[in-house]
Amino acid sequence: MKTYLQNVNAMLLLRRCHRLNPIGPLSIDRNQVAPVVASCAVRLCSSSNDQRFHQYGFSASWRHVLAGLLAGTGAVLAYGLHRHKAIEKSSPLPIISQEEVTRHRSLKDGVWVTYQGGVYDITEFVSIHPGGEKIMMAAGGAIEPFWSLYAVHNQEHVLEILSEYKIGELKAEDLKKQSTFKSSDPYSSDPERHPALRTNSLKPFNAEPPPEILADSYITPTAFFFKRNHLPVPQVDPDLYRLHVEGLPRGVLTLSLEELKTRFPKHTITATLQCAGNRRSEMNKTRQVKGLNWGFGAIGNATWSGAKLRDVLLAAGYGPDVAQWARHVQFEGLDKEITGSAYGASIPINKAVSEEGDVLLAYEMNGKDIPADHGFPIRVVVPGVVGTRNVKWLGKIVVSAQESSSHWQQKDYKGFAPGIDWDTVDYKSAPAIQELPVQSAITTPAEGSVIDRSEEMLTVKGYAWSGGGREVIRVDVSVDGGKTWKEAKLKSSDKEGDQTSPPLGRAWAWKLWEITVPLPPEAQELELICKAVDNSYNTQPDTFGPIWNVRGLLSNAWHRVKVKISEDDDEE
Amino acid sequence: MKTYLQNVNAMLLLRRCHRLNPIGPLSIDRNQVAPVVASCAVRLCSSSNDQRFHQYGFSASWRHVLAGLLAGTGAVLAYGLHRHKAIEKSSPLPIISQEEVTRHRSLKDGVWVTYQGGVYDITEFVSIHPGGEKIMMAAGGAIEPFWSLYAVHNQEHVLEILSEYKIGELKAEDLKKQSTFKSSDPYSSDPERHPALRTNSLKPFNAEPPPEILADSYITPTAFFFKRNHLPVPQVDPDLYRLHVEGLPRGVLTLSLEELKTRFPKHTITATLQCAGNRRSEMNKTRQVKGLNWGFGAIGNATWSGAKLRDVLLAAGYGPDVAQWARHVQFEGLDKEITGSAYGASIPINKAVSEEGDVLLAYEMNGKDIPADHGFPIRVVVPGVVGTRNVKWLGKIVVSAQESSSHWQQKDYKGFAPGIDWDTVDYKSAPAIQELPVQSAITTPAEGSVIDRSEEMLTVKGYAWSGGGREVIRVDVSVDGGKTWKEAKLKSSDKEGDQTSPPLGRAWAWKLWEITVPLPPEAQELELICKAVDNSYNTQPDTFGPIWNVRGLLSNAWHRVKVKISEDDDEE
Repeated sequence: MKTYLQNVNAMLLLRRCHRLNPIGPLSIDRNQVAPVVASCAVRLCSSSNDQRFHQYGFSASWRHVLAGLLAGTGAVLAYGLHRHKAIEKSSPLPIISQEEVTRHRSLKDGVWVTYQGGVYDITEFVSIHPGGEKIMMAAGGAIEPFWSLYAVHNQEHVLEILSEYKIGELKAEDLKKQSTFKSSDPYSSDPERHPALRTNSLKPFNAEPPPEILADSYITPTAFFFKRNHLPVPQVDPDLYRLHVEGLPRGVLTLSLEELKTRFPKHTITATLQCAGNRRSEMNKTRQVKGLNWGFGAIGNATWSGAKLRDVLLAAGYGPDVAQWARHVQFEGLDKEITGSAYGASIPINKAVSEEGDVLLAYEMNGKDIPADHGFPIRVVVPGVVGTRNVKWLGKIVVSAQESSSHWQQKDYKGFAPGIDWDTVDYKSAPAIQELPVQSAITTPAEGSVIDRSEEMLTVKGYAWSGGGREVIRVDVSVDGGKTWKEAKLKSSDKEGDQTSPPLGRAWAWKLWEITVPLPPEAQELELICKAVDNSYNTQPDTFGPIWNVRGLLSNAWHRVKVKISEDDDEE
Repeated sequence: MKTYLQNVNAMLLLRRCHRLNPIGPLSIDRNQVAPVVASCAVRLCSSSNDQRFHQYGFSASWRHVLAGLLAGTGAVLAYGLHRHKAIEKSSPLPIISQEEVTRHRSLKDGVWVTYQGGVYDITEFVSIHPGGEKIMMAAGGAIEPFWSLYAVHNQEHVLEILSEYKIGELKAEDLKKQSTFKSSDPYSSDPERHPALRTNSLKPFNAEPPPEILADSYITPTAFFFKRNHLPVPQVDPDLYRLHVEGLPRGVLTLSLEELKTRFPKHTITATLQCAGNRRSEMNKTRQVKGLNWGFGAIGNATWSGAKLRDVLLAAGYGPDVAQWARHVQFEGLDKEITGSAYGASIPINKAVSEEGDVLLAYEMNGKDIPADHGFPIRVVVPGVVGTRNVKWLGKIVVSAQESSSHWQQKDYKGFAPGIDWDTVDYKSAPAIQELPVQSAITTPAEGSVIDRSEEMLTVKGYAWSGGGREVIRVDVSVDGGKTWKEAKLKSSDKEGDQTSPPLGRAWAWKLWEITVPLPPEAQELELICKAVDNSYNTQPDTFGPIWNVRGLLSNAWHRVKVKISEDDDEE
């Protein structure tokens, strides 16, 4: 809340300042809030003729304002700064040696990096780097190996930002020496993937299946299950693998893979996992968001077998005493950042220890050892909960009073109001996403398909799922852009006519659905829409605009597909 | 499913029949399906020249079709029949004695009733009466006492239907004798109510507070808590009161009020109850629905104290053995229909026995004995679950493998697709509503308010709540019809700045919210909108059309309020 107010203050300050003494471009856009406020602040602090600022303790609060503006911001603010800089520079660029670059490794001496033969002074950028102080690791050296690990940087606007900091060209002989970086690609041992997958990012690997195959099989074939990795796939020797369970009074419990498989009963569940960014590309069309441009295939349904997390926690000493203070169960992956810190996430303790929560330490996916891309040898499967908390390559479990402090728990997978932008976002103001909202999509026909009029009937198919174990009870389909709706037939398995319902609150798996409707006689184009209803009668919002959020998460408005109807030439 | 198919069959039959031999009005509307199909059927059965009907076993399936059409239908079909009859009648009406009326008490002799001095032959109507065979209890007598109990009949379209069956006038002296009925009003001992309440139905009593007071108090004063009674308020002597717990292996456990209060720990929760029909009037504007025309005040927040249902069930013998087969806990009220059968509902067993489900057998509301209108002496409070399952005047608890067989569980509180109408509805196809979806409304300013431009700022207030213990984490407010959104400030109590969160999954109480925004300088009218987001990131649908359902339940699209801005004359 504080940061929100601070931002409001900053805005008010900005408006007031603008009135006092307009600077820079006459029309101030949001991206330029930071530099404009900064200039304004300097003037006000040195020569303020507006007593009200002193009255409200302006200079102290100014620091807060700036801190507030910078906390949790990102490239957007950076944009503002680099545009400001751009105005100042215009001279030709000198040749600089690696030795000289290496001397610039601190804020005091300046922070220089190299990229593809260019030398960049990013000193000013350090404090506003969205990834925080990690950027200092690159100081004095090449930035490529970091970007090959954090491939999020491989975007045009990042290069644009960097280009504004360019101060010279690296000596040709020094550039040649950098070729060694190429052989140290941390992704070089990533597994082979099926070429049918649509790759959104190669390093780390993020890919989804062609969506039209999704509704053809109740269980998604492992090869086509979407892959969402945040870091390189770790190489784990199953014989050396150890899982550490920490935070309980009895001390650390360490389990081998064999022990996990033999000491605890094996449970199997069918559960759908969905990335929080599934269908982001549709939200992105409303207004640009940040993140991988997922279609509607970042979802899949598999069987998972393993030990119940509950059983393991009980064996490790979880009990009523622990329940008094424990609030979260944190997971750490064996996939590591360049800093050595692991991928991490946490879930609420009551989900973890509930008999009906069905959280598994899974060693099998679709009846086979979990493959490398999906977390070999152990993945936490937290059914009903967003993909990101289903930590792969699980190395450590920590029972805690606190949520995971990881970037992904604290500063990434959260939802915000549509009015919140990168300059006003306050990650503390929103809870980490756990259960996902109700979702559905049309997998066939595909967008832009042409239907032959002579076919008379049209079959529409898709998937539907809701988080928190809430069962999808209905899918409504419209072929006229939402004017009228028909109920689709739901499938809970590949068996014809199977109408079995899961236990209440434990509907972890999606439903596939299908409906065959007559082609409207007049229409030349149809807008197909689907929307699902779950058993708490929640339904999907109509449009993306009002659920838009900066990170493009939770994108669950109605799915719309346009198809054309071609007239059959043979008809009279 | 069967009924749906049967209706489809009926439609196909109708279409075919229409082609063979058009009858009655040339344009056939849905309301007239029944009589048209009936005439058609007679013709086809007697002289069918269409061999296909015989081929498909037509005469047998016809009976199914008719059964299907009549099951779960209502006044809409009745309309069709009475319009059909209207064409046939035109002669003056005879005077008929009560003695003569009394001779008509069976389908064989005819079913006659009297109403306000008129005599009606409703023989044809009996089989399509929405309330089923109960109507036969009125045969040969006056219908007023039944309608005073089932006040749903006090609607214009019901009188319209009845009028078409009029066959005579009751003898004046017999009419006088009927005045005795007036003294037997089963609602005569209903309690006094606050005159500020807005009454939607007097008998049974259904009323809501003026909505603008709702957000003024975190705890809704009991007098202003919406009242939703299905039947007359029963008079219960607390000393004679007994609660029966049945269905468990140890036999029936009977508890006095005193035992309930002393044998079990007293728990207090703050929980919001909402009628499934809250905000029906808004959905009704899209397309007419059936039910009480609730505004947005059929919701309230109170503290409830009592024994945990879980504790009582454990004392009555609930345990792992019972858990093997038990699926539901049924509740019966002491409020009774004229048939003697009690108001009833059920909830899933896992909600009932969960430590975190917080289901109470409440004897206090807002710190005092639960008043008569709210269930004295005991009301089940099922937090997070639709009002109708929070059975008042609780008389009996039954642990069962089955849901309650009551009308309200089986044939009333369910949601359907917008394409489903009274002629296609199949109550078996949808689950009984339990958890409600996310909801919010603007309580101030009121629709049509005029805001003075000189006020510069506008404060918007309201409530937000979600079912299933899901906490409302955000309310977005728009003052420009949904183009832009601002986040409102949430309140979890009346204490200033209170930001405490309930335990995860146990957010039973609503949040009040408030936001103050500058008046847009140009606008002369504002469309205010609110929408809430809960912690599974479900949100409200944009519009009512796509969530429309025949019963007008689950009406949770964005709440929209239009206000005008008046220009201040004093301004230059």
